[in-house]
Amino acid sequence: MAKKYSLGVDFGTQSGRAVLVEVGTGNIVATAVKDYTHGVMDEYLPDGKTKLSHDWALQHPGDYIEVLEEVIPFVLRESGIDPANVIGMSIDFTACTMLPVDKEGTPLCFKEEFVHNPHGYVKLWKHHAAQPQANRLNEIAAKRGERFLERYGGKISSEWLIPKIMQVLEEAPEVFNAADKFIEAADWISFLLTGNERRNSCTAGYKALWSKREGYPSKDFFKALDPRLENLVDEKLSRDIYPQGAKAGELTGRMAKLTGLLPGTAVAVSNVDAHVAMPAVGIVEPGKMLMIMGTSTCHMVLGTEEKMVPGICGVVEDGIIPGYMGYEAGQSCVGDHFEWFINNCVPESYMNEARERGINIHKLLREKAMKFKPGESGLLALDWWNGNRSVLVDADLTGLIIGCTLATRTEEIYRALIEATAYGTNMIIENFEKHGITINELYACGGIAEKDEFMMQIYADVTNREIRISASPQTVALGSAMFGAVAAGREKGGYDDIFEAAKHMAKVKEEYYKPNPQNVEIYKKLYEEYKILHDYFGRGANDVMKRLKKIKLEHSYKETK
Amino acid sequence: MAKKYSLGVDFGTQSGRAVLVEVGTGNIVATAVKDYTHGVMDEYLPDGKTKLSHDWALQHPGDYIEVLEEVIPFVLRESGIDPANVIGMSIDFTACTMLPVDKEGTPLCFKEEFVHNPHGYVKLWKHHAAQPQANRLNEIAAKRGERFLERYGGKISSEWLIPKIMQVLEEAPEVFNAADKFIEAADWISFLLTGNERRNSCTAGYKALWSKREGYPSKDFFKALDPRLENLVDEKLSRDIYPQGAKAGELTGRMAKLTGLLPGTAVAVSNVDAHVAMPAVGIVEPGKMLMIMGTSTCHMVLGTEEKMVPGICGVVEDGIIPGYMGYEAGQSCVGDHFEWFINNCVPESYMNEARERGINIHKLLREKAMKFKPGESGLLALDWWNGNRSVLVDADLTGLIIGCTLATRTEEIYRALIEATAYGTNMIIENFEKHGITINELYACGGIAEKDEFMMQIYADVTNREIRISASPQTVALGSAMFGAVAAGREKGGYDDIFEAAKHMAKVKEEYYKPNPQNVEIYKKLYEEYKILHDYFGRGANDVMKRLKKIKLEHSYKETK
Repeated sequence: MAKKYSLGVDFGTQSGRAVLVEVGTGNIVATAVKDYTHGVMDEYLPDGKTKLSHDWALQHPGDYIEVLEEVIPFVLRESGIDPANVIGMSIDFTACTMLPVDKEGTPLCFKEEFVHNPHGYVKLWKHHAAQPQANRLNEIAAKRGERFLERYGGKISSEWLIPKIMQVLEEAPEVFNAADKFIEAADWISFLLTGNERRNSCTAGYKALWSKREGYPSKDFFKALDPRLENLVDEKLSRDIYPQGAKAGELTGRMAKLTGLLPGTAVAVSNVDAHVAMPAVGIVEPGKMLMIMGTSTCHMVLGTEEKMVPGICGVVEDGIIPGYMGYEAGQSCVGDHFEWFINNCVPESYMNEARERGINIHKLLREKAMKFKPGESGLLALDWWNGNRSVLVDADLTGLIIGCTLATRTEEIYRALIEATAYGTNMIIENFEKHGITINELYACGGIAEKDEFMMQIYADVTNREIRISASPQTVALGSAMFGAVAAGREKGGYDDIFEAAKHMAKVKEEYYKPNPQNVEIYKKLYEEYKILHDYFGRGANDVMKRLKKIKLEHSYKETK
Repeated sequence: MAKKYSLGVDFGTQSGRAVLVEVGTGNIVATAVKDYTHGVMDEYLPDGKTKLSHDWALQHPGDYIEVLEEVIPFVLRESGIDPANVIGMSIDFTACTMLPVDKEGTPLCFKEEFVHNPHGYVKLWKHHAAQPQANRLNEIAAKRGERFLERYGGKISSEWLIPKIMQVLEEAPEVFNAADKFIEAADWISFLLTGNERRNSCTAGYKALWSKREGYPSKDFFKALDPRLENLVDEKLSRDIYPQGAKAGELTGRMAKLTGLLPGTAVAVSNVDAHVAMPAVGIVEPGKMLMIMGTSTCHMVLGTEEKMVPGICGVVEDGIIPGYMGYEAGQSCVGDHFEWFINNCVPESYMNEARERGINIHKLLREKAMKFKPGESGLLALDWWNGNRSVLVDADLTGLIIGCTLATRTEEIYRALIEATAYGTNMIIENFEKHGITINELYACGGIAEKDEFMMQIYADVTNREIRISASPQTVALGSAMFGAVAAGREKGGYDDIFEAAKHMAKVKEEYYKPNPQNVEIYKKLYEEYKILHDYFGRGANDVMKRLKKIKLEHSYKETK
């Protein structure tokens, strides 16, 4: 029998990417990437005239369709594989990345009347302009003692679905009224592919306040937000939520034509780009935490019971692996930290040295930083350059570095920032364990995990845990392809469930990071210091960070708006 | 009658400098500088073989004689002035910069037997290797309840005379025994010039624990330090202390030959390079604080009574201006801060921009930092990169910066460091005022004060005080020349006292910095935040800085010693 293949399409922040994967092994046979034509729109609409306010971040839904019609035919062509042997597919997306569509599923921004209206477009996950709405939502939910808050660590983010919808309602009621649905881009694409609106439990759970056992928040709650929202769920969302691993449907003829796949190809319900990586590194059981390390880090771990853990992003049943509680936490500034450092703090002499030696500046800094032992720099940082997601859930916190002397060198600061992110991760682990979620082993994927051995060893030393690294060059898209193989099912050459798929398709490197006992001891001491500062500045003993931000807002030049 | 002139010679850390000044106006007619042949010796003795330990800083006394024989003839030649019209001279020196000499005043390091012994050389002010001795001295003094501690803000520095002598005694008893005297380089030079050992009250008071009313600490105290020190004062120092403004004597024939001046030229008792600047900007009365701003800042103010002010460097009667209490405080990291920043934290793009525009990198950073309003960066720093001299007197404190975000730019950090040093100055002012020393106006001299308008305006805004700037290009050496004119006396065409000299010779610019009321208001808020952090980290609530330093010492590579 011919080898079977499955397709994963990953829609990231800047581009979409397809991988074609061998179902039997998880090996990738072809990859294609396409940058979004409109990228992230944070200044103007495509008309070049309609200006966007500060904190906005939009996308153009047409860009996603372009991805489908370009990358899928490309990987088929490139690999020479017969579409008949591509048994399934699935997509994953950033989230909450949402859009208003009409009855037929057409994005409102495709229509003449909304083409100049920013609210007609896709609100990308990092659209932060719904903060006032999120604040109000949190206040009202807290006042009403809404239990759902606990599932989200006590606070709803402005990045999520309901605050974004509230913003549309308040700033563009005409868009709100014209919208037949508000839908995650992830679900919109599977709807487009199959003709079925089968919303996935991952985005519903993590971003739309839905839970398998309790459903959405009550109508009363929505009414308290705004009387016009009372029936939001029934009118513009859906109560019909499918667990991860379920099938969304089969490829329509029209989409088959667009992609070059065969009509009837199985399509799984969609997923979120972080969460879908779990089975791709083989995590389908509790005790193992995956860190997806990029500009920020997303931490995921499975549990058998629903525990209320403060300061996490969310806990969702079936949200990652069916049958398990999926716990998510996050650090908002990891890779971004080092980019910021390179752009703002690295002296010319270092750049020259890197150039002369023909190496990357990060590599040079790592080499220099590696010469120091833990604790030798005398520096300690709080990794809050972009606020603190878990466990403090406070965007108004800011970065701190302490211990500077006239002998402090650039690479020592660089190292301190790396260590700070490791302490932040350890804080998350401790918080999970304190609330009953055991974490024995760490897994990591993403650019940093794959490339930065220095940083990963520090993480192993700080957390005192072994760390295993994804072995697939495309962990996320591989995860989607795995769900595609599950949607196809065993009869078609795929798998019965994601557990089976993980056995055959997951990829982890043989070598892994082991804690160095000497370093572990020193980092324990430093981590104690980190915790003292973390609590002092993060838990209200000294709200200087917030007061500085307030002074900053009161006295800064008003450049935008 | 021919115009009269006076000569000031300033012995700095790297070089010696002479100015020839018109007595009637304070105008400089000629200047000459000579770098010390041996510079600061902190790695090897001049033999190139004897290695110095970490924290050592020595000088070669022969370098000072070279200065005298080079710069004085140079200014005479350059100006064409008849030595007969040079009526007086005085020198000032860094302090405590001390050396062991024999009965004839010959430095021990000039002798064959001590030429390879580091303890035979001049210990420069910034020789920090006597810290263990200083710690022991402080402990013993505190245990015995020695009142003299209060005059020095509660703590004796390792930079001062007695710890340095203790180090000699303990590490090189042969040098201690061979030394007829330990003497400040300032007093050694005036001894050399006049043949008289007339030690000045400024170094005796600020560096050797002497006070006009109480003399030196008791023999009992010295005995408690070490039985061999019981009679130190009588055996190797001197109780014969002369107030600033007194005459040391007249130039000997031998030194006249060396310098080109006439024998009999009046020589004032020597001075310290910071303190001698006070009359040069016209400060000869209370209420006005002078900041000498260089790598570090020295703060001086006069008072009519002796008040005990915690955390100052010292209070010395006649120590600055005869008849007044001279108060000194200090910040250990000012210009050094910005040099550190330039060397370790400024990205290549900024260096390129400065080069393209043909301007200094500091100027570029100032230009960029100037575009921000106070508070707009959201940053706050503790200026402790080199510990804290006043008011915490704690070398183990370290630098901190808080409020960093991914939008923080290099120039904002630069500005925050400037502001931090201004807050540190304000802390010193507040501390003086709290203890009864009024400060109405600020004066400033030194490179930063003269060149950095941006920084000086921030100081005016933070301290909410007007700041006047020295108008002499050589404030310190002018101060010495003024004392030279006083040593000559009115009959010779000089002045009766330093008050008269100040009326005619002091130089302050007409324009001065005025606080901007809007900025003052914002800085008041920021300063409140600074104080909270200052006290939290500096007064024991969280000794994380010290613990980090301890971890650093325990775990750092042992490179030296």
